[in-house]
Amino acid sequence: MDLGDRVCIERNGASYEGVLMPSRRKDHVVIKLDNGYNIGLYLPKSKLTLVEKGRELKPLDRDKQLRRKAGLPQVSILSTGGTIASKVDYRTGAVTSQFSAGEIIAAIPELEEIANYNARVIYQILSENMRADYWMALARAVAEEIRSGAEGIIITHGTDTLMYTGAALSFMLKTPVPVVIVGSQRSSDRPSSDAAMNAICAATVAISDIAEVCVVMHGTTSDDYCLIHRGTRVRKMHTSRRDAFQSINQPPLGRVDYLSREIQTFLPYHHRSESELVLMDRLEPQCALVKYTPGASPEILNYYIDKGYKGLVLEGTGLGHVASDWIDGIRRATEENIPVVVTSQCLRGRIGDLVYDTGRYMLDAGAIEGEDMLPEVALVKLMWVLANRPNEVRSLMRRPLAGELSFSTPMCV
Amino acid sequence: MDLGDRVCIERNGASYEGVLMPSRRKDHVVIKLDNGYNIGLYLPKSKLTLVEKGRELKPLDRDKQLRRKAGLPQVSILSTGGTIASKVDYRTGAVTSQFSAGEIIAAIPELEEIANYNARVIYQILSENMRADYWMALARAVAEEIRSGAEGIIITHGTDTLMYTGAALSFMLKTPVPVVIVGSQRSSDRPSSDAAMNAICAATVAISDIAEVCVVMHGTTSDDYCLIHRGTRVRKMHTSRRDAFQSINQPPLGRVDYLSREIQTFLPYHHRSESELVLMDRLEPQCALVKYTPGASPEILNYYIDKGYKGLVLEGTGLGHVASDWIDGIRRATEENIPVVVTSQCLRGRIGDLVYDTGRYMLDAGAIEGEDMLPEVALVKLMWVLANRPNEVRSLMRRPLAGELSFSTPMCV
Repeated sequence: MDLGDRVCIERNGASYEGVLMPSRRKDHVVIKLDNGYNIGLYLPKSKLTLVEKGRELKPLDRDKQLRRKAGLPQVSILSTGGTIASKVDYRTGAVTSQFSAGEIIAAIPELEEIANYNARVIYQILSENMRADYWMALARAVAEEIRSGAEGIIITHGTDTLMYTGAALSFMLKTPVPVVIVGSQRSSDRPSSDAAMNAICAATVAISDIAEVCVVMHGTTSDDYCLIHRGTRVRKMHTSRRDAFQSINQPPLGRVDYLSREIQTFLPYHHRSESELVLMDRLEPQCALVKYTPGASPEILNYYIDKGYKGLVLEGTGLGHVASDWIDGIRRATEENIPVVVTSQCLRGRIGDLVYDTGRYMLDAGAIEGEDMLPEVALVKLMWVLANRPNEVRSLMRRPLAGELSFSTPMCV
Repeated sequence: MDLGDRVCIERNGASYEGVLMPSRRKDHVVIKLDNGYNIGLYLPKSKLTLVEKGRELKPLDRDKQLRRKAGLPQVSILSTGGTIASKVDYRTGAVTSQFSAGEIIAAIPELEEIANYNARVIYQILSENMRADYWMALARAVAEEIRSGAEGIIITHGTDTLMYTGAALSFMLKTPVPVVIVGSQRSSDRPSSDAAMNAICAATVAISDIAEVCVVMHGTTSDDYCLIHRGTRVRKMHTSRRDAFQSINQPPLGRVDYLSREIQTFLPYHHRSESELVLMDRLEPQCALVKYTPGASPEILNYYIDKGYKGLVLEGTGLGHVASDWIDGIRRATEENIPVVVTSQCLRGRIGDLVYDTGRYMLDAGAIEGEDMLPEVALVKLMWVLANRPNEVRSLMRRPLAGELSFSTPMCV
C-alpha cells in the first residue's frame, strides 16, 4: 500500500474510503476522504483494503502564456498562498500552497473572459504566517501595480487571516481602483471547491466601479452569489463553511451574481478614480490584542507593558469590560503612553463604557472606547495610527478612517 | 441643575433629552436617554435646558414577605448581581447591582403564579468580576438548595460572563432538577427592559422537565419567546441587543413561549430526576485563553509557561492554526506537562488540524484539538478536568462531558 493509493477501512460500523496520506505517528493512518477532509485513525496500514492504486497528478502548465484580448481591462493578480493557491501533495502530505497566480488563471479559464492579467507571486505561505511586515510589502506591491496601470487588483490569500490583511490594506492604501482580496475554503482538487467561483466573482469586482479594499467570498453554501465585504468589516465566522465570511456591524458592500456577473451594492462606496493613490505603508508591529476572561490575572497587562509594547487592544466582555483589578494596569499603560483600546468579545454591537460603573472606571483610567470596531480590526488600526499619526491616537481610534467604525447611533443601541 | 433632573440639549442638529447623570470629567455632562443608554458630551452644565426637576425614586419593599401558595413547586432563586438585579443610582451614577433575589420577585408579580421561592443573595457584583472560586461557591450553593428540596434553581446573573458561569456549572454539577441561569440586557427601569420576560421564562423552565444547566434569554428583539440554551453551547454575540445570546454549533435546547408559557424542545435532554445530584466543585484557576493574531510574538506562550500556568487554550485562526514560530512553544508546554488545547477564533465550526501542514506540526508538538468547542468553554472545561481528572486531560478534552462538543461529523465539515 503506497501513499496516494485509494483505500478503504471499516471502523465502529462506519466505512471510510479515500486516498492514503502520510502520517507522522506510529501505527496511525491518515485518509483524505472524498469531501476533502482528512481522517486520522490509530491502526496499522495492514488493516487497510486497497481500492485502487494511486495515479500521478498531471501537473498544470506552469508557464502557460497569458493571451491578451483587446478591449479588456488590465488586472493584476498578486498571490500570497493559501487554499486558493493550494493542492494536495501526496508525497509530503496535507494541503500546501503551491499555485502561482499564473497557474490560478490557467486553472480557471473563465477569468480570461473578464480581463487581461499580470500575475505576480508575492508570497507562498499559509496565511497564519502573515504578519505586519508582510502586509507592508503587500501594500507596496499593490501600489506599484496601480502605478504601472493596473485597473484592478486581485490578491489571492489564505482565509485564516484574510480579514486582518483586508484591514491592514484598508488603512495603508487610498486606492483609485478596486483592490479585491479573495480566498477559498476548500482546495481546487475537491469537488466542493469554492476557488473558481470566488476567483471569477473577484475578477468581476476588480473591473467594477468599487474602488475600495474589499473581500469577495461565497455568500451562501450554494454557488449562487458572492458577497463583497468592506476590508475593515469582515470576519471569518466558521472554520470550514464556504460562506464563512460575514460583514459585522454593517451590511456587506454588495454582491456579485455568479451566473449573470451583475453587481448589486448595498452601501455608498468610493468610486473608481475618485481618490488619488495614497500609500502610507508603515505599521507599528509591537501591538497586542489581549482577550479578557473571568479571573484572568491583571499581571498579564504588566507583561505587555514591561516588554515595551507600544499599544494594546483589550477584547473585553459585554459593552467593553474587564475585572476591576485590571483597571490599575490600564492606568499604568496610559501613564506610560501606551494606548489601551477597548473592544468586545461579543463581536457585534458597540462599546458603551459609560453605562456601568466598571466601564466608567476604565475610562477614568485612560481606556479608549473602540466604538463598533471588530477587535482584530482595532489591533491593525492601532498599528497603523501609532506608525503614522502617533499624536492623534486617542481621537483617531474613535473616528472612522477606512469605514471601520460608524456613529450611526449615539450609543450602543 | 441637579443630578437626577430631566434636561435637554441641542447639538449638531440633534436634540437629546434625558436624566442628568454624574460625570467625573471637567466640562462634561452625561445624560441618560430614554432608551436607557448614556450619552457623554463635552460642554458645561450651564448649556443644558431644564425640562423637569428630578424626583426621588420610590424604594421597593425590600423585606416583602413571600406568600406561599399550596400546590406550586418550590424553586430557589440565587442572585449574583448584574443588570437583572440593577437599577440606576442617580447619586453615585451609572447602573449598579442592587436588587436582592427577594426584590426581583417583588418587582415581577407574575413569578409568584409559577412557583414558591426561596431567595438567596450569593453575590452582588457585575459579572465581569466573576472568577473560578466564585463559580465553585455558586455550584456549592446550588447543590445545597437541591439537597434542601428545591425542585428548580434560578440563578440571576450579569450577561457579560454569564456564558462562562453556564459552562462552569455544567461541568461541576450533575443535576436532577433544572438549573436556569438568566440575565437581562437592559435594567428594569428602562422601558425596553427584558428583565421581567426573561425571569418569567426562566421560572417556567425551572419547574419543567429539563434537568440541565441552561441559559434562558430573549430569542428575538420582540417579547415573543425566550430560547433555552445549553450551558456549554451559548455565547453572548452582541453587546446590547436583547437577543444577544445564541447557541453555537448546536441548536438551542428549546424555547419558551412568553404568552402561553409552553416549552418546545429541539434536542434530547436530561429529564428531571434522571440523574442523582453530583457535585464536583473543584477548578484549577491557573489556566489561560490566549488569542493568536498574525505576527504575535511566540514569547507570549513562554510567559504563561514560566509563570506556572497549568493549562492553556489557544484561540487560533481558521481550522485551529497559529504561526509556525509558535509551535516550539506548544512543544515546550507539552513537555512541561501543560496541556495546550486548540480552538478557533471563527467560533463556529470544528477544529481540523490534520488538513494543513501547520495543524499537523501543531499536533506533532502535542496540541490537543478542541473539536467544536467554544474557546471560552474549552478554558472552563480545562480548569475542571485539570482539577478533577488530571491524568485524562488529553482524552477528556476531546470527549463530551456536558454536551460541550459533538462528533456529528468525522471531521470539520
